[in-house]
Amino acid sequence: MTSIADATAVPAGQRRESDALGSRLLPADCLYGIHTLRALENFALAGRPVRRPLVHAYGLVKLAAVRTIGALDGWRETSERADAIERACHELAAGLLDEHVPVDALQGGAGTSLNMNVNEVIANRALQLVGAAPGDYALISPLDDVNRWQSTNDTFPTALRLAAIREIGRLENALVRLQESFQAQEKRLEPVVKVGRTQLQDAVLITLGREMGAYAEAISRDRWRVAKCVERLRTVNLGGTAIGTGLGTPRAYIFRVVDTLRELSGIGLARADNLVEATQNADAFVEVSGILKAGAVNLLKICGDLRLLSSGPDAGFGEIRLPARQAGSSIMPGKVNPVIPEAVTQAALQVCANDQAITSAAAMGSLELNPFLPLIADCLLGSIDLLASACDMLARLCVDGIDADAERCRQSVLGATASATALLPLVGYTAAGELAAAASASGRSLRDVAIASGLVSGEAYDSLISPEAVCRLGSPDITP
Amino acid sequence: MTSIADATAVPAGQRRESDALGSRLLPADCLYGIHTLRALENFALAGRPVRRPLVHAYGLVKLAAVRTIGALDGWRETSERADAIERACHELAAGLLDEHVPVDALQGGAGTSLNMNVNEVIANRALQLVGAAPGDYALISPLDDVNRWQSTNDTFPTALRLAAIREIGRLENALVRLQESFQAQEKRLEPVVKVGRTQLQDAVLITLGREMGAYAEAISRDRWRVAKCVERLRTVNLGGTAIGTGLGTPRAYIFRVVDTLRELSGIGLARADNLVEATQNADAFVEVSGILKAGAVNLLKICGDLRLLSSGPDAGFGEIRLPARQAGSSIMPGKVNPVIPEAVTQAALQVCANDQAITSAAAMGSLELNPFLPLIADCLLGSIDLLASACDMLARLCVDGIDADAERCRQSVLGATASATALLPLVGYTAAGELAAAASASGRSLRDVAIASGLVSGEAYDSLISPEAVCRLGSPDITP
Amino acid sequence: MTSIADATAVPAGQRRESDALGSRLLPADCLYGIHTLRALENFALAGRPVRRPLVHAYGLVKLAAVRTIGALDGWRETSERADAIERACHELAAGLLDEHVPVDALQGGAGTSLNMNVNEVIANRALQLVGAAPGDYALISPLDDVNRWQSTNDTFPTALRLAAIREIGRLENALVRLQESFQAQEKRLEPVVKVGRTQLQDAVLITLGREMGAYAEAISRDRWRVAKCVERLRTVNLGGTAIGTGLGTPRAYIFRVVDTLRELSGIGLARADNLVEATQNADAFVEVSGILKAGAVNLLKICGDLRLLSSGPDAGFGEIRLPARQAGSSIMPGKVNPVIPEAVTQAALQVCANDQAITSAAAMGSLELNPFLPLIADCLLGSIDLLASACDMLARLCVDGIDADAERCRQSVLGATASATALLPLVGYTAAGELAAAASASGRSLRDVAIASGLVSGEAYDSLISPEAVCRLGSPDITP
Amino acid sequence: MTSIADATAVPAGQRRESDALGSRLLPADCLYGIHTLRALENFALAGRPVRRPLVHAYGLVKLAAVRTIGALDGWRETSERADAIERACHELAAGLLDEHVPVDALQGGAGTSLNMNVNEVIANRALQLVGAAPGDYALISPLDDVNRWQSTNDTFPTALRLAAIREIGRLENALVRLQESFQAQEKRLEPVVKVGRTQLQDAVLITLGREMGAYAEAISRDRWRVAKCVERLRTVNLGGTAIGTGLGTPRAYIFRVVDTLRELSGIGLARADNLVEATQNADAFVEVSGILKAGAVNLLKICGDLRLLSSGPDAGFGEIRLPARQAGSSIMPGKVNPVIPEAVTQAALQVCANDQAITSAAAMGSLELNPFLPLIADCLLGSIDLLASACDMLARLCVDGIDADAERCRQSVLGATASATALLPLVGYTAAGELAAAASASGRSLRDVAIASGLVSGEAYDSLISPEAVCRLGSPDITP
Repeated sequence: MTSIADATAVPAGQRRESDALGSRLLPADCLYGIHTLRALENFALAGRPVRRPLVHAYGLVKLAAVRTIGALDGWRETSERADAIERACHELAAGLLDEHVPVDALQGGAGTSLNMNVNEVIANRALQLVGAAPGDYALISPLDDVNRWQSTNDTFPTALRLAAIREIGRLENALVRLQESFQAQEKRLEPVVKVGRTQLQDAVLITLGREMGAYAEAISRDRWRVAKCVERLRTVNLGGTAIGTGLGTPRAYIFRVVDTLRELSGIGLARADNLVEATQNADAFVEVSGILKAGAVNLLKICGDLRLLSSGPDAGFGEIRLPARQAGSSIMPGKVNPVIPEAVTQAALQVCANDQAITSAAAMGSLELNPFLPLIADCLLGSIDLLASACDMLARLCVDGIDADAERCRQSVLGATASATALLPLVGYTAAGELAAAASASGRSLRDVAIASGLVSGEAYDSLISPEAVCRLGSPDITP
Repeated sequence: MTSIADATAVPAGQRRESDALGSRLLPADCLYGIHTLRALENFALAGRPVRRPLVHAYGLVKLAAVRTIGALDGWRETSERADAIERACHELAAGLLDEHVPVDALQGGAGTSLNMNVNEVIANRALQLVGAAPGDYALISPLDDVNRWQSTNDTFPTALRLAAIREIGRLENALVRLQESFQAQEKRLEPVVKVGRTQLQDAVLITLGREMGAYAEAISRDRWRVAKCVERLRTVNLGGTAIGTGLGTPRAYIFRVVDTLRELSGIGLARADNLVEATQNADAFVEVSGILKAGAVNLLKICGDLRLLSSGPDAGFGEIRLPARQAGSSIMPGKVNPVIPEAVTQAALQVCANDQAITSAAAMGSLELNPFLPLIADCLLGSIDLLASACDMLARLCVDGIDADAERCRQSVLGATASATALLPLVGYTAAGELAAAASASGRSLRDVAIASGLVSGEAYDSLISPEAVCRLGSPDITP
Repeated sequence: MTSIADATAVPAGQRRESDALGSRLLPADCLYGIHTLRALENFALAGRPVRRPLVHAYGLVKLAAVRTIGALDGWRETSERADAIERACHELAAGLLDEHVPVDALQGGAGTSLNMNVNEVIANRALQLVGAAPGDYALISPLDDVNRWQSTNDTFPTALRLAAIREIGRLENALVRLQESFQAQEKRLEPVVKVGRTQLQDAVLITLGREMGAYAEAISRDRWRVAKCVERLRTVNLGGTAIGTGLGTPRAYIFRVVDTLRELSGIGLARADNLVEATQNADAFVEVSGILKAGAVNLLKICGDLRLLSSGPDAGFGEIRLPARQAGSSIMPGKVNPVIPEAVTQAALQVCANDQAITSAAAMGSLELNPFLPLIADCLLGSIDLLASACDMLARLCVDGIDADAERCRQSVLGATASATALLPLVGYTAAGELAAAASASGRSLRDVAIASGLVSGEAYDSLISPEAVCRLGSPDITP
Repeated sequence: MTSIADATAVPAGQRRESDALGSRLLPADCLYGIHTLRALENFALAGRPVRRPLVHAYGLVKLAAVRTIGALDGWRETSERADAIERACHELAAGLLDEHVPVDALQGGAGTSLNMNVNEVIANRALQLVGAAPGDYALISPLDDVNRWQSTNDTFPTALRLAAIREIGRLENALVRLQESFQAQEKRLEPVVKVGRTQLQDAVLITLGREMGAYAEAISRDRWRVAKCVERLRTVNLGGTAIGTGLGTPRAYIFRVVDTLRELSGIGLARADNLVEATQNADAFVEVSGILKAGAVNLLKICGDLRLLSSGPDAGFGEIRLPARQAGSSIMPGKVNPVIPEAVTQAALQVCANDQAITSAAAMGSLELNPFLPLIADCLLGSIDLLASACDMLARLCVDGIDADAERCRQSVLGATASATALLPLVGYTAAGELAAAASASGRSLRDVAIASGLVSGEAYDSLISPEAVCRLGSPDITP
């Protein structure tokens, strides 16, 4: 009859939940609760939910906590309820509850909303599993059971580190794929001699195979550096609760929970020695992002080269042909654009931009916490995902199918006066320069001029511009 | 029997489409076609489709082209088909066909895939409207009809500029909302005198109202600068086709199509004088993004202040209270965190990062085109959207509900030795310094010490720290 | 006898100065004083002093203050001393005292050290001018006379804005120079038809002149946008003193001092309506830097094009030759590298990086002040200087001397199948495509194939690839 | 008589030098030559010469080359000349010839101008040492002798890596200094219990010592990560000459020269396996810069905290006092600003900006070379220098002298309702909340209310807020 009565009336098909601010109605079967509802109302910035790998990793973190608690005190719940909570954690970790974790990627609160969303979904799913109704928190509580001995401040960074390590595994696979693709091209294109270029100006000779080999080598370094990132991420602050002192949390739990998570995840996590420090700083994410950015730079350089080498094809470098992936133009028939390197370039630029966001956010932490971890998480996991996808698509849709225009390369070698550098080991600097000038002035090929000069035979000339000669390291004897 | 026969067989419920690369099957009622299909296979980077405002603006650009063509030659189609195409353009512009434009935000090809997706959807939707089946391109063709006299290279940048201008309108409204919210607080908090701070150190007195007024003023400048962005965006290259020479396009169309778009959109667009230049450069987007970033910086500064002023509340500045939006902690009852300023901060940092991506992408254009416009579009429209959402949520969920802790402010004023600066106009520099030192040494309040000194009466003292005195500009007489 | 006595003993050739922290010895004739000495000890980061334009502008700001004070109360000093102070300000503004302002560019304290360095130098130089010894502050005081009614917080931002406006004038001149250089090339290279390229792939024909004209147009837009920056900078907070309330400063002075500065500088400065706001925010510098960055992006794009167009020259695009500025290689005789565009590129990248520093620093202001103005000043003035120098050197040492390789361009036009697009207006899309395919298959030139086909005469063909046809906007009639 | 004659006339006190472009006059005793002269005319951007550590490392690289050549063929010069060249290299490496290496930091040409400047200075200095005149290149040649078997493309990156490793050594020392400073404060401030804060809101208790310890720990991680940078830098491409194939260079030299440099420098350099790749890519510098940036982020966070903790001091956090380094204000007597953290903050922001420049420059390399190494070198060495100076000054001028305001901290602990969290282990969540609410409502201290409630004795209360209790990790028993 009164507004108070109204406020507590629950329409059919709904349930009422309360928090420190008041109470709210939710659909009766909704797996998230009032904290998630408020988060959805508060945060509508990214328009995208938190990245899934973070949600799945959070499921594993919760499982580790729940299981550790159970091991320590036999769990205060009945075994059925404990089992249900564990099973709900498993489901979350496996991606089965994704749709119930809708909180926005750019949330305030240092990730509290994600933690609460996860707590609520696990609790309600567990309630379903024991045959109870969502919202029956007296039976299984998001806070007292699922969040027990935990805080957003330790679970969020731990889940983020775990998610990042797992995603980096995916990136490593994609890097292997790309490296192998370039290595295959290194072999295939080994015999194609071409004019090298420094500062885009014709320089000494090289082969297409060496160029592909250089890309493979750069990607190999990326593999190594990306693998090293795991070292920066494996130290977690789980157990530290609010500020790293583990206030109110049994020491036995603190000492054991990371071990449990390590076993559950199969990833070599370790507890931070200084939990207070580990809770407040985000510099490790900056370091990892910076390392990823070095990989993005390699992609930018390589894709720039691929676009350049395939440019023209008539009025450009035209040394290689990228596989056609889609029609290039309605006006220009037959035009094929380097769409895959272009897309990869944009992904790499986004990774560089993400690095800036991560850097600024990490720098703005204050005292015992960094409240901007949600942005860091979104950008870091976004960067890893972009790089993994980009490497995979670059290998599969582009590099695998690269072909040389060997004739074009050969004509350039014969026509470019810069090829005179190949004669250096045989005729010396002065004569090579004179031959180049004579060829340039007469319009005849350098080969013809060189042979006509009597300084070099046709056979010797061809040997000097053979793939073997061009790729050989230095000269065999001391004085060239 | 043969593979060729197999290749052309079309299973039930499907249709076959062809392009320069071959042919592919699609669901018979699918509104997009083979070019979109290939784009979906080629690009899976962002994992998000192109931003909707760009798609809607593209619909308007297509409508302008179609209508201009119709006006010029009576349209070569029957009127029924022309009407259907126009209606399909309208539907796209109105967001009714959103689900049929799924190409990835980070696509290669300078936007060709989006253009083709739009062309295909308009053609197939128009075919539906005339009672024909999708794919019957002999009747209505994505290329010959919907893309007629156009290129990605002129329609994409035009649609992007149009979309940006329309989104900026939304941002301006959000800025008005935020400015008014701060102005209301300027009035409400006018009487609350407090200690000002420079370099975070206690400085001369000010009022909370003045601080809120400064925020309102900064946002007012954002309104002005954001409004100015429209000038940078209104010049479009529609009609230039591939590289800005309008090759193969009737001059009458080129001269008229922008007028049509201006009328359709109600936005003061103009045709670029130098279409070649307008087709190849993206610096205007860098300029606009840079201006938006100045607005982001104001949000960062303001949100930093709000977090600082509401810090504590006991062991911090504690001068204002932000409205509680969600429970802050499971461990610390009653803890309320500044979640809205935190979320807005992250949005602003993302805008700054987007600016970097836009800058790099724009700088990497080559010769007659910039192939990285899709990234630029994604980041620019993303920034406008983030800022609009952030301003709205900051006003509605935070600033509107700010309360002063007037007592805390008053205690600070009485307790801080820096308040001695308020006595400067009356007692001069030396005496003020001595009174401050005496108060500091004795532990008594500055007011008591000052009155006891006989230099100032209680009434005069209170007058010096009144809101009027504190906010007054300078001293009325020449020698202070 | 005592340590106190020792502390006050002054060795020959030295003088002793005191501040709130104690006292220090300085060379007797040193024009700066104890505050500068401490700043030099505190800050050794950049290893460079504050940028000179800021120092010179500071001289003008001090002059405006001193003169306004004199006008208001007849100046409390003797006219001789007032004259000496004004003359010292003039000398500082004219760059005559540069060596006496050594404080580091990256100083803490929001610029206090620069302000004090300036105050001390003006006071001591004025003392010299009246025949007194430096350090005789009872006669002329850095604080009571030179800094009277001022604060770092109003003089520093005012001087920065003034310096930036004046430096922008220099940048505008350099932009004019560069635009004119490109315009001259637009005319010279007008007849050189060449293959245009989108996404680095051969596209429709264009002329080198149109390309140069596009660069001129982009630079013209830079001129316009840079000129607009002045609007963002002309509103100053001089008179606001510490936090913008002008505490202890006569209103008459506040109302007049900006007028005086406007007259002295000849620049249209205006007093901010809201001095509190104008004192605490640095977003205008972010906006200006963002606008400058758009200009840097144009330089990056143009220099990338110049490097590309001059690449090879044999095994590259080779369409233009940049003037040789220095020998390119000891190994490769005759190699000429695009060193000027490479240097300009680096300057432009530095401008983009400066923009990031300015953005972060501006975002980190707190409450009544931004303490990071010295970094903002260093980066903003650095960017303007870099851009001005870069535009000037690009015009003078590179663009002025660009030559076309017209024969190379012509061969490309004849050889590139993409040139078939030039036939579109005459023969239509299908026939053009067939001719291109036939030429490509047979190895014969497109011209020969086209003429042989009977579809186009030799005369008509040559007309279609004439500069006039290539640059013409669209087709004259409605249906192509 | 003729202009040619004029061109070769050499005025007194001058000498004439020639290059591929023509000839020029220089002062007769000038140690640099025509290539340097042209570079000075071409490049005037940074207005600063190349960073000295790079010049000194270049001296060592030249020495390694010269000595290796001598060992291989007994050196073609007389021993006197070889000795003179080596001695000149030593002098350059020792900084004795700094003034003769003036080429601008932002030079085009991938560093050719620096290489030539170094070659010329070494040759001319060697000529001086053998009693000949500068410019007598028939005797000792910059190119044929000093640059023999070398290229800018292998010597510049090698010198940069060597310089960076040596400067990183300096940075490591500075980090040790800073870490020790924080560790000393960790001990000194161990007993000061205070209110911790997450998201700037009062949270659970902590000690100032723990906070200082967290800073020490973060700096310790910086030491580790900075030390790791050396791994990324030690692989050099010396011997690869122009593009990494070592064209024209004896293999014996290539195999030996890096060993020589390793011995000369005492730094564990290694030759790159793939010299072609090592010559063209700059990603290692991006990675190192990214790692340095993580260190900059720690400085930003720490300096933000120091500014915050020392804020007020009356109307702020006021928990610590930073040592006064200079007078803070002319208007506000006794105001002391956190100028050292402010300066360090600006240095760290500059490091972040440098990282962006390095990233963009590295991404823009093409094919066999990155022409933008001079910018990368300037920014990378600049970042290391800034960080080293910043860490040193932060330790020496600020952290060493930090004092606690223990009374202020204690009052906060007693007054803040958040302190109720300290009671959690004893009274549980509900009772703690009620006590906090009661204290808040009554205005009495939490301690009084808690004791009055009978739930906790005064002794127990004081024990709960003792440093030991506050810093203890978790609770000793299982159920709290």
